[in-house]
Amino acid sequence: MLTLNEIRNLVQEELDRAEYVEYPEQLFEPVRYLIGDGGKRLRPVLALMAYNLFHDDITPAIKSAVGIEIFHNYTLLHDDVMDDAPLRRGVPTVHKKWNNNVAILSGDAAAIVSYKLIEHCEDKYLRKVITFFNQMAMDICKGQQLDMEFETRNDVTVDEYIRMIYWKTSVLLAGSLRHGALIAGAPEEIYNALYDFGGCLGLAFQLQDDYLDVYGNEKSFGKQIGGDITINKKTFMLIKALENANDEQRAELQNWITTKHFDRNEKVQAVTELYNAIGVREMALAEIANYIVQCKEILRNIPIEEEKKSVFYEMITTLEGRNH
Amino acid sequence: MLTLNEIRNLVQEELDRAEYVEYPEQLFEPVRYLIGDGGKRLRPVLALMAYNLFHDDITPAIKSAVGIEIFHNYTLLHDDVMDDAPLRRGVPTVHKKWNNNVAILSGDAAAIVSYKLIEHCEDKYLRKVITFFNQMAMDICKGQQLDMEFETRNDVTVDEYIRMIYWKTSVLLAGSLRHGALIAGAPEEIYNALYDFGGCLGLAFQLQDDYLDVYGNEKSFGKQIGGDITINKKTFMLIKALENANDEQRAELQNWITTKHFDRNEKVQAVTELYNAIGVREMALAEIANYIVQCKEILRNIPIEEEKKSVFYEMITTLEGRNH
Repeated sequence: MLTLNEIRNLVQEELDRAEYVEYPEQLFEPVRYLIGDGGKRLRPVLALMAYNLFHDDITPAIKSAVGIEIFHNYTLLHDDVMDDAPLRRGVPTVHKKWNNNVAILSGDAAAIVSYKLIEHCEDKYLRKVITFFNQMAMDICKGQQLDMEFETRNDVTVDEYIRMIYWKTSVLLAGSLRHGALIAGAPEEIYNALYDFGGCLGLAFQLQDDYLDVYGNEKSFGKQIGGDITINKKTFMLIKALENANDEQRAELQNWITTKHFDRNEKVQAVTELYNAIGVREMALAEIANYIVQCKEILRNIPIEEEKKSVFYEMITTLEGRNH
Repeated sequence: MLTLNEIRNLVQEELDRAEYVEYPEQLFEPVRYLIGDGGKRLRPVLALMAYNLFHDDITPAIKSAVGIEIFHNYTLLHDDVMDDAPLRRGVPTVHKKWNNNVAILSGDAAAIVSYKLIEHCEDKYLRKVITFFNQMAMDICKGQQLDMEFETRNDVTVDEYIRMIYWKTSVLLAGSLRHGALIAGAPEEIYNALYDFGGCLGLAFQLQDDYLDVYGNEKSFGKQIGGDITINKKTFMLIKALENANDEQRAELQNWITTKHFDRNEKVQAVTELYNAIGVREMALAEIANYIVQCKEILRNIPIEEEKKSVFYEMITTLEGRNH
């Protein structure tokens, strides 16, 4: 088995070759820019981890795995336009550095590049590869659609929220694992189990992000605490708080949500205190723990040698380690 | 052989079923809106005409052909955002009726719907279907990229222009024919010839559009004459004029191009007179005739029964009939 770092280096080498660049080069320049600024390459690494369960040599799967990374970057290009985000990984987003049209069109080109890359597999797997990829891509669109709809809704339930983040972020992690296992020739039972594992892991990860935005350590979290609170983002924390608040707490929370002029620190502190009083912290930790238990359960039941699973258990450990 | 109208009705029935709509419906509403406002369904009709050359029953190919129509509409959704076009087929464009984000995301979803539909074919054709579709999709992106780049360039050559319109509009017509023939089991020689035929036909059609914008009959053309002249669009007409003008003519043309305040009719009349003097009218007609000759030549050489080709010859006749 290769280490995560060995896999990541192989992915990076393939990305650095940028074989997808054709004439006119300007069409692909924003994709190179976005991909060049780093990122953990989590999705292709997951795909190749899954492939590596069945083959020592992962070379035949690298192009296909890189297709998933490029697909991920396509969604970032378009999402950043839709969210009008100024920065991504600390540098100006493509639509800020160039303009919206460049981000839209280069995003479209990146999506096609990813479709061209993921089909690097044996013929016998091709139909499933395409079907799964389409489903995954569509789920991500649906997640983004719900995310946008939720912005103007005040009655989003936890179930709806979980579905949204599942589609928007978990499905691509799940699909990466499934993709790698599928093109490695894994039996259906195993690639489906890996899909479920990735879905749970993604949910745990996203819920932890919601949690850390309130209770995290600024240094290890890497972002300013309270960002979601400041913009009234309907995360698990806020939805649960509104659901479980008493009348007085709800009125106070609504007041913070609707107030246009406020002191950031004061708002973050006040809302955090409300979360504490309502018990949202414990609810979030229980929910995350619940998904982690599910992850471990799924992993335990996958019929492959235990020692091969260690790298997947490691991912859970890393996730648990973020909690502080 | 089915008539064009019979084929068009079958396409329309499949589109009306809108089986691609899933939860959340708002994601697909703009696609239904855009598709619902009509259009000639030229691309799926071409695909099914090609399929019909080999099979009397075109039912197995309808979903796949409709995938091409939805792909076409996806490109319209994004192009209209990039061009900030207010109207499409006489009704407000999606980004005007809703907003840019809706047009971007629904366009993305439409692209995935089209990928889901085009794969309705026998397994043995799947890899070629996907490879060809990706190439076609990428060529369209490249065409749009060049189109945008040309807006700010003053040295575009006729060859560059032809390549741009070939990618942006002809490749999808060519690819539709090839797709239909491929999934019908046509030999490579025939689906490639149909691709070439579609490419030539598309170029003739686009060049004729350029020509008719200057020399057309407003009633039969369906648009106000001189639209391209008014906005200095770098069509075949303008590029050829700049290439062949003498110093005095070029100075006058440049003057009209750079003048910000002008009377529309006066500008259209003056530029048309310059085109007349430079001989652009004859150059355009010769170029169109050249592509039509090529279309006929390709068609004649395709090894299928002549009577089956009549519907394709009809398309050329229709094209020739537009010239007045």
